[in-house]
Amino acid sequence: MVRRMPAERLREHTVPVAAARRRRLRADQARQLADLLRHQILAARFPRGVLPLEDRIGADYRVSRNTVRQALDLLRAEGLVERQPGVGTVVVCEKYPHALDRLQGLAETLHEHGPVTNEVRTAGPVPAPAPVAGRLGVPEHSDVLYIERLRRLGGLPLSLDLTYVPMDVGAGLLDCDLENTDVFRLLETLTGQPLGHADITLEAVNADAHSAAVLQAPRGAALMMLDRLTHLSDGRPVDLEFIRFRGDRITMSGLLHRTA
Amino acid sequence: MVRRMPAERLREHTVPVAAARRRRLRADQARQLADLLRHQILAARFPRGVLPLEDRIGADYRVSRNTVRQALDLLRAEGLVERQPGVGTVVVCEKYPHALDRLQGLAETLHEHGPVTNEVRTAGPVPAPAPVAGRLGVPEHSDVLYIERLRRLGGLPLSLDLTYVPMDVGAGLLDCDLENTDVFRLLETLTGQPLGHADITLEAVNADAHSAAVLQAPRGAALMMLDRLTHLSDGRPVDLEFIRFRGDRITMSGLLHRTA
Repeated sequence: MVRRMPAERLREHTVPVAAARRRRLRADQARQLADLLRHQILAARFPRGVLPLEDRIGADYRVSRNTVRQALDLLRAEGLVERQPGVGTVVVCEKYPHALDRLQGLAETLHEHGPVTNEVRTAGPVPAPAPVAGRLGVPEHSDVLYIERLRRLGGLPLSLDLTYVPMDVGAGLLDCDLENTDVFRLLETLTGQPLGHADITLEAVNADAHSAAVLQAPRGAALMMLDRLTHLSDGRPVDLEFIRFRGDRITMSGLLHRTA
Repeated sequence: MVRRMPAERLREHTVPVAAARRRRLRADQARQLADLLRHQILAARFPRGVLPLEDRIGADYRVSRNTVRQALDLLRAEGLVERQPGVGTVVVCEKYPHALDRLQGLAETLHEHGPVTNEVRTAGPVPAPAPVAGRLGVPEHSDVLYIERLRRLGGLPLSLDLTYVPMDVGAGLLDCDLENTDVFRLLETLTGQPLGHADITLEAVNADAHSAAVLQAPRGAALMMLDRLTHLSDGRPVDLEFIRFRGDRITMSGLLHRTA
């Protein structure tokens, strides 16, 4: 809870309160500026990845140099920029765009940015717990294939994926090249039909200690968590996934329409 | 970086390494279980919001009691459940679903969950910086309306929204009830045409100290950050927003299709 000063105290402490208000205002302005610069950074709008000088940013955005510094501090804390001696503030962001418009596997959606490799941490049959069985439409405690993969782009961890597949399809996956191929592509090959649609839910969560260690991210790092139930084109649910993306390595972009 | 033990040390320390491996395995199992329970929690599947007893969860999911405890610890750390003496583990989640399928204002999409109120922190004309002018299609440094709102659901902060609107439309917004009405609805009334589409980008970020204080969330809390450029049905960009949602209060759900 933000604590509020009672009115009497406010009157007694005009000077500190006015100072606090100035600080608040600068923090608000810094956030506002940081959001604008963040968009430019993600859209790769700065030539050679070098931001303009602080004075220039201040003039362009009509804010004080202190506000510019505070905004750059925010972007630095997020790992989007770094200060390099003799060069200035440079973009160091390794954030990649994941399409929200179309159902695509990671290697498909990121193919321009390099190959996705998968470290298979676990792959084998498990008895389906009730919520998995229910969502995949298989009998409770019947075997389903469980796969756990740490996925990397450019060698760096991108996401930790927990996947459940009905055993009649899943058995075939065990003979496939899970290290180098999206499960989506393999499912289409194995079933001989394209995927149809997926129900997705996205959340922002703080990484627990163990997930952070696996993803080589700081404890508490913001993660983009994706719960996704994917169906074949005939409507059959075929792939239930729980995916933790490193928040500093992924953006999700799409197009929304006002009418359905 | 996760530190790896060199091979020599691995051989010398078989017992601690085996213990570490057991811990890793339990942590992996706990995450796996937590993800399944998390879905049940968000879908409000537990009668009266009370989770089954630990032994029962262990039997249902075929894991040890220690794994169940560790999974519940993960959910507790996220603020999804609490342990209540004499009752057990209860759902305390105040997470609401925001539709990703249709372009909707916050009050529209959450109307079943209660009224959204808006604390207008700032509202007035500002000279449009280049990236705002470019995206809204107005001359650089011409005035645009800037609005900053802290949005609440059920009295609790849900999001901090920074909004830019071209001045010809924005001037009318200043006379409207911004406290109780979505900007989307007001824009449709003022322009006499429905909204068309929006380009969105979602990110998971850690809250900086000041944003955390405004949102009454812990410093570093995971936020869902939304960059959204909304167009009228005639295609004109009319509303540029930078929105920080508290990660513990919002989920984003939608449907993806394999073919466009």
